[in-house]
Amino acid sequence: MNQPSSVKPENVAITIPRRLDAEDAQLALQKLQTILKRHEVIEELAHRQYEDQERSNLLEGLLHRQHENEIKAIVNGLHPSDIAFILESLPVAERKVVWQLVDPEHDADVLLEVEDWVRESLIESMDHEDLVAATGAMDADEIADLVPDLPPDVIAEVQKGLTDAERAQLIAAMGYPEDTVGAIMDFDMVRVREDVTLEVVLRYLRRLHELPDHTDQVFVVDREDKLRGTLSLTRLLVSDPESLVSDVMSTDYLALSPLDSDAEAAGAFERYDLVSAPVTDDLGRLIGRVTIDEVVDVIQEDSQEQELSRAGLQEEDIFAPVVSALRNRAPWLLINLCTAAVASLVASRFEDTVSHIVILAFLMSIVAGIGGNSGNQTMTMIIRALAVGRVTGRNVWQLVKRELLVTFMVGMCGSLVAGLFAWIISGSLAIALVMMAAMIGNMLIGAALGVMIPILRDRFGNDPAVGSSVLLTFATDSLGFFIFLGLATLFLV
Amino acid sequence: MNQPSSVKPENVAITIPRRLDAEDAQLALQKLQTILKRHEVIEELAHRQYEDQERSNLLEGLLHRQHENEIKAIVNGLHPSDIAFILESLPVAERKVVWQLVDPEHDADVLLEVEDWVRESLIESMDHEDLVAATGAMDADEIADLVPDLPPDVIAEVQKGLTDAERAQLIAAMGYPEDTVGAIMDFDMVRVREDVTLEVVLRYLRRLHELPDHTDQVFVVDREDKLRGTLSLTRLLVSDPESLVSDVMSTDYLALSPLDSDAEAAGAFERYDLVSAPVTDDLGRLIGRVTIDEVVDVIQEDSQEQELSRAGLQEEDIFAPVVSALRNRAPWLLINLCTAAVASLVASRFEDTVSHIVILAFLMSIVAGIGGNSGNQTMTMIIRALAVGRVTGRNVWQLVKRELLVTFMVGMCGSLVAGLFAWIISGSLAIALVMMAAMIGNMLIGAALGVMIPILRDRFGNDPAVGSSVLLTFATDSLGFFIFLGLATLFLV
Repeated sequence: MNQPSSVKPENVAITIPRRLDAEDAQLALQKLQTILKRHEVIEELAHRQYEDQERSNLLEGLLHRQHENEIKAIVNGLHPSDIAFILESLPVAERKVVWQLVDPEHDADVLLEVEDWVRESLIESMDHEDLVAATGAMDADEIADLVPDLPPDVIAEVQKGLTDAERAQLIAAMGYPEDTVGAIMDFDMVRVREDVTLEVVLRYLRRLHELPDHTDQVFVVDREDKLRGTLSLTRLLVSDPESLVSDVMSTDYLALSPLDSDAEAAGAFERYDLVSAPVTDDLGRLIGRVTIDEVVDVIQEDSQEQELSRAGLQEEDIFAPVVSALRNRAPWLLINLCTAAVASLVASRFEDTVSHIVILAFLMSIVAGIGGNSGNQTMTMIIRALAVGRVTGRNVWQLVKRELLVTFMVGMCGSLVAGLFAWIISGSLAIALVMMAAMIGNMLIGAALGVMIPILRDRFGNDPAVGSSVLLTFATDSLGFFIFLGLATLFLV
Repeated sequence: MNQPSSVKPENVAITIPRRLDAEDAQLALQKLQTILKRHEVIEELAHRQYEDQERSNLLEGLLHRQHENEIKAIVNGLHPSDIAFILESLPVAERKVVWQLVDPEHDADVLLEVEDWVRESLIESMDHEDLVAATGAMDADEIADLVPDLPPDVIAEVQKGLTDAERAQLIAAMGYPEDTVGAIMDFDMVRVREDVTLEVVLRYLRRLHELPDHTDQVFVVDREDKLRGTLSLTRLLVSDPESLVSDVMSTDYLALSPLDSDAEAAGAFERYDLVSAPVTDDLGRLIGRVTIDEVVDVIQEDSQEQELSRAGLQEEDIFAPVVSALRNRAPWLLINLCTAAVASLVASRFEDTVSHIVILAFLMSIVAGIGGNSGNQTMTMIIRALAVGRVTGRNVWQLVKRELLVTFMVGMCGSLVAGLFAWIISGSLAIALVMMAAMIGNMLIGAALGVMIPILRDRFGNDPAVGSSVLLTFATDSLGFFIFLGLATLFLV
């Protein structure tokens, strides 16, 4: 709220480079926030101090223009990706102010760069013409990415400006489900024939004046557009121009299918260190290509999604209205609440036992918690092994045995500590022994479930990460209470 | 353990392609496992059935050779990255068997591709000469990656085979700390001068016969090796060969410093869609380059590390001896055990209250758990926002307010459910009300800590993810018990 007087970025002449590192980005962001804040404060002051409406308006107008110019100066010097970052990092109202001031020539690039949850709010605040202008400058595959967020009349108008080929590409791109190769491929391929010399290829490329981004290879196709090989630019550059394409091209390439999962394509890029890969249809015809920049986005998004889904969340605008945050968070917490309630219902069956030995009430949550934590370790290892395809039908049993053994040994050490604690707090060796037995038992249950839950979910086609931890905690809580209080009922009462 | 008779991959002629998708990789892995298993079984049988030692040995030898040939046929047809995958997915003993059968020409590539925890076991099982041969074929930056795992005599011998320049590079590469740009950069750069024509550059490249992997641009340097600009291959290909390099080169490039963090470099590659980037020293001299394949590895490793560290784990060989798994897992569980013990100690201060109203014992863990879950959601959002640099001094307070508001509203909904449950199970409206109040209170504590813990850790330079969840759970458990039982003591007893 209050700003330390020693830091006044607005008074310091900062030169912000065009491409930002993390520190520069923070600096640019802070500077913008300062201007926006100052503007807000001055607007308020102006309203308060000047009874004379006209003078107030005049002053405001002047300051307003000055602030706008300052913002423009900062924002429009940036790379579109950095403009996108700045917009993502501002609250909705301020985001709109800044977005209005972004140079229209950056509109298309910024719209393509921002995260989905921000794009919506940007498109909302653009008028029809700006949207058509921005979208009209895009490639078919880029338009396809934006279509879900665009108003229908804009789509209709943009469509008219496309060539027949582009329109066909747009329709094709829109047809592929999310998370497939089809959804991330583009159509910017350079095709050559195999029966020409490299000299001809070189001349052909020169006539194109510009090659698509991330062109590290051109594709060799026959008359039916069937992929025959690939010719890397480096190969093209170092080989004798008199050679035939067919002599120089590589036939050891990886072709993706448009319905492959994008995660699998990412795996291939990672394994084989690719920059681009051709996409072919069932007949082997070249229909598109995937480039490393899209793949990096896929990897990043997948890892973010996984991180969020562990806490039962989806991607959320940290400045979105509170209501949308509620929708994001409440379901997961309610599920956890219900499983916790069931676990406590299980425990409450042992009310008599607990009322005899109250100290059990304080020990039982330790037993439940450690089982969950231990099982969670096992589950994390197994989910990792599953994700990279390291678990086969053949070694599942080996994994279970190993996990049980490891857990048993960790449990032995841990239960000594826990038993000692129980002994000190209760003064009863019997309670300590029950505690130790229950803890080891519950940890073994956690380990067994930590292996089996993700493997079963995986086998039945569900994503192994999501929901697994709820199930695990539910089981280790309920069974932890049950084993501990059950043993206590048998041996102590 | 037992193998269903319907699946006999060893009898089916599978043609495994050179580059595997996930399914192929599983298939190859299973086939190998089958052969290895069969081999083991037959060895056992042979020992049992033939008293005649000589005949037994003969038979074993024959089968042995047959199995070896089968394994070789599968493994050596694969891309080195896929060989690495197979080796990572086998238990140590079988891994060594297969590794012995890998063609020496793949040794270097496989060693560079496998995960750190596997590399050690592979190097152990190689003899001096094979190691020298494999390592001698590597670039200086690649050798530097392996140095920590290599025996000193191998390093000494390999060093001798290097040129002076390579030796200088090796020493430079070894000097940079892990997680810096210096540690992932290579020295395979093509340098050109700015005062020559593209025609000259083209001729120069052709004379090189081969360009380094991931060469998408050549670097324009002056006589002092200072970087003046970059010239992309695509630009080189489409421009008039008569033009000067200085007219065509780009001066709007991003140069990394060798001490930048690799994560920051990855961020730049992602933002600006780079394939390679120059690395320069303080004087602007070109000293190396970073390529996208290294960056993709950095991104993957960081996300894996984060995933594991959340469960208090490090990368672990799922087939490593149990003892090393103990070292990996026990510390985290012991820490959790201690915090749980402290929380239960807090709760046990209210023994009188709980012995009066036993049902409190079963409800208190719900209050503690939901506070932890809710705080964890908040923390996940904040860690994400921190990671991408979206949190500035300016908006922290805004974030805290928003999180508290969201949590309060989710808490209201949740506490209705929890209150109803408490009412039903206890039959006491007073208990239900205490439960609701305690739950909302503990959730607010969770939210506040969920914002503050990662921000404080980040400000003091610690990685915000690791350890934060222990602290959070500790606080929400202890305070959850304290608030709930405290309120109950005040109002119910």
